[in-house]
Amino acid sequence: MNGLTYRNAGVDITRAEDALERIRERVARTKRPEVIGGIGAFGGLFQLGGGDTVLVATTDGVGTKLEVARELNRHEVVGTDLVHHCVNDALAMGAEPLFFLDYFSCSTLDPDVFARVVGAMADACAAHGCALLGGETAEMPGMYRDGAYDLAGFLVGGVARDRLLDPRSVSDGDVLVGFPSSGLHTNGYTLARAAVARGGLALAAPLPELRGGTLGDALLAPHTSYLAAVRTLRGVARVRSIAHLTGGGWEGNLPRALPPGLGAVVERDAWTVPPVFRLLGDAGAVPEGERWKAWNMGIGLVAIVAPEDARAALRALPDAIAIGHVETRRGAAAGVRFA
Amino acid sequence: MNGLTYRNAGVDITRAEDALERIRERVARTKRPEVIGGIGAFGGLFQLGGGDTVLVATTDGVGTKLEVARELNRHEVVGTDLVHHCVNDALAMGAEPLFFLDYFSCSTLDPDVFARVVGAMADACAAHGCALLGGETAEMPGMYRDGAYDLAGFLVGGVARDRLLDPRSVSDGDVLVGFPSSGLHTNGYTLARAAVARGGLALAAPLPELRGGTLGDALLAPHTSYLAAVRTLRGVARVRSIAHLTGGGWEGNLPRALPPGLGAVVERDAWTVPPVFRLLGDAGAVPEGERWKAWNMGIGLVAIVAPEDARAALRALPDAIAIGHVETRRGAAAGVRFA
Repeated sequence: MNGLTYRNAGVDITRAEDALERIRERVARTKRPEVIGGIGAFGGLFQLGGGDTVLVATTDGVGTKLEVARELNRHEVVGTDLVHHCVNDALAMGAEPLFFLDYFSCSTLDPDVFARVVGAMADACAAHGCALLGGETAEMPGMYRDGAYDLAGFLVGGVARDRLLDPRSVSDGDVLVGFPSSGLHTNGYTLARAAVARGGLALAAPLPELRGGTLGDALLAPHTSYLAAVRTLRGVARVRSIAHLTGGGWEGNLPRALPPGLGAVVERDAWTVPPVFRLLGDAGAVPEGERWKAWNMGIGLVAIVAPEDARAALRALPDAIAIGHVETRRGAAAGVRFA
Repeated sequence: MNGLTYRNAGVDITRAEDALERIRERVARTKRPEVIGGIGAFGGLFQLGGGDTVLVATTDGVGTKLEVARELNRHEVVGTDLVHHCVNDALAMGAEPLFFLDYFSCSTLDPDVFARVVGAMADACAAHGCALLGGETAEMPGMYRDGAYDLAGFLVGGVARDRLLDPRSVSDGDVLVGFPSSGLHTNGYTLARAAVARGGLALAAPLPELRGGTLGDALLAPHTSYLAAVRTLRGVARVRSIAHLTGGGWEGNLPRALPPGLGAVVERDAWTVPPVFRLLGDAGAVPEGERWKAWNMGIGLVAIVAPEDARAALRALPDAIAIGHVETRRGAAAGVRFA
């Protein structure tokens, strides 16, 4: 029996890249003078005429974590997740959240489930000082299975132009500061669910590998918001850039925070990979490399800071971990090297 | 056999209202000082500190028009529709589009279909001078039927504070100026599809009722963008407010452009309801009142203008039609009265 890969679990990241490549030119033709930067960042940048504030816009879903939440009747978590995911993407550009809108789509609306999901979004917005400015509720009979629904979130943040984070400011020798994740956050659930199915794991049973916790609880830990941590970090250290580790895992995200010619060296021994990743990976015989491509493996966000500020950063943020550094890569694309 | 209603076709608008009511207070707690106005408008308003520009944010989907587009392999139209729908919602607040983001969700990504849908969005954005600033592509195996996908669009527009349209500026005697729709636009498709099924209508056959056109073509006419028309209108007339006739039809949308105490009188004879609405309504034995609640019936956008400017408006915009006026309603909620 071959090991599970993200691709044979049904998600092929190269398909999305191929699809995006086909429309790149047509998207480029929509550029306006206010648009800063290109495609591929964690958020789109738009500077309104006259002002100093750059708007950062980002959109996300929560993937098939939806299915786990539904199975365990824990709908609130995906509402929280959606907001936190978007907040972190804005943070990766240097921005703080301003307002949020949601899209909730289903075959037949269950007002109770809707209120639990969108109510949790509202609470998460309030906790982040972010206005829930609107939303769309779509009832599309026949589109979704009974009880299934999909969610999309849209967040606009703001940042003073000179506080924008820019991967081009990263230098050889800069330090990678990692922040622990609470679990898979909202990515790699299709692979995780395939592993659960293959390994015959129960979601509700206490497991010794999880210190008596259940796999359901581990899978439904809310996506961590790093707003408070990043605020503190920026107060004590020169932050060059930030990567939010979401779909595509390490290789798919850390290079987005680096300029051409530089790569990241990640010391895998710098932290202990949480047991849920080993449990899932082993249950699905997921090859080690594949785990790092689909999952965050215990680190949800990586900030790249000036080396002389690393100590102050780690002192101010007890959870933060120095997980590696930036190095020059001759003749190769930026990427992640695990050491 | 009873006639088809929107509710027995599977969409119950009161369910969405009930659902929203349950979270209203929690949403209200997310309000920030920059947020202007309340819930229920066509877009959320956010004024950045210092600037004169108010941001208008809106999100939409295209409903089960998706299913018709898929059945007839005409994917481009829903991409165009999504942008036009959002543009019109921003217009209803007085704003012009600045940037757009999309969410594309499916079980297995078909790069060709994706490129056709999102490529059409990009082209529609370019045609409106609107930046396509980002997007999310979600591959969620098992969530959608083979070949099915869902779309959400998010648009941010901008308007100078003193150019914001405000229903509170509407007075008794103001004139309703209607702009023709191209068909159903993106609303009421679940009812339309149920009517097609009940009446055994073929999508691909030329029909005498449609002057030899096919029902498929009529159902897949792109959602009209009213950007150019509204620009012209605002150049020649004092526009008080605008209603975009989308989900919920006339009763669901026209009152959103009116203040408490005023109602709309709509002269149904002022224009000819396009044949596609009669064809569908008759095929499904949809009661007359129900048609006006689910469909736009040939008018996609209604601008409310000062009476002394109505003539100039109609002269500048040959397609525009005077369809009624505003009247005082004593002791009753604002609403639509058909005359």
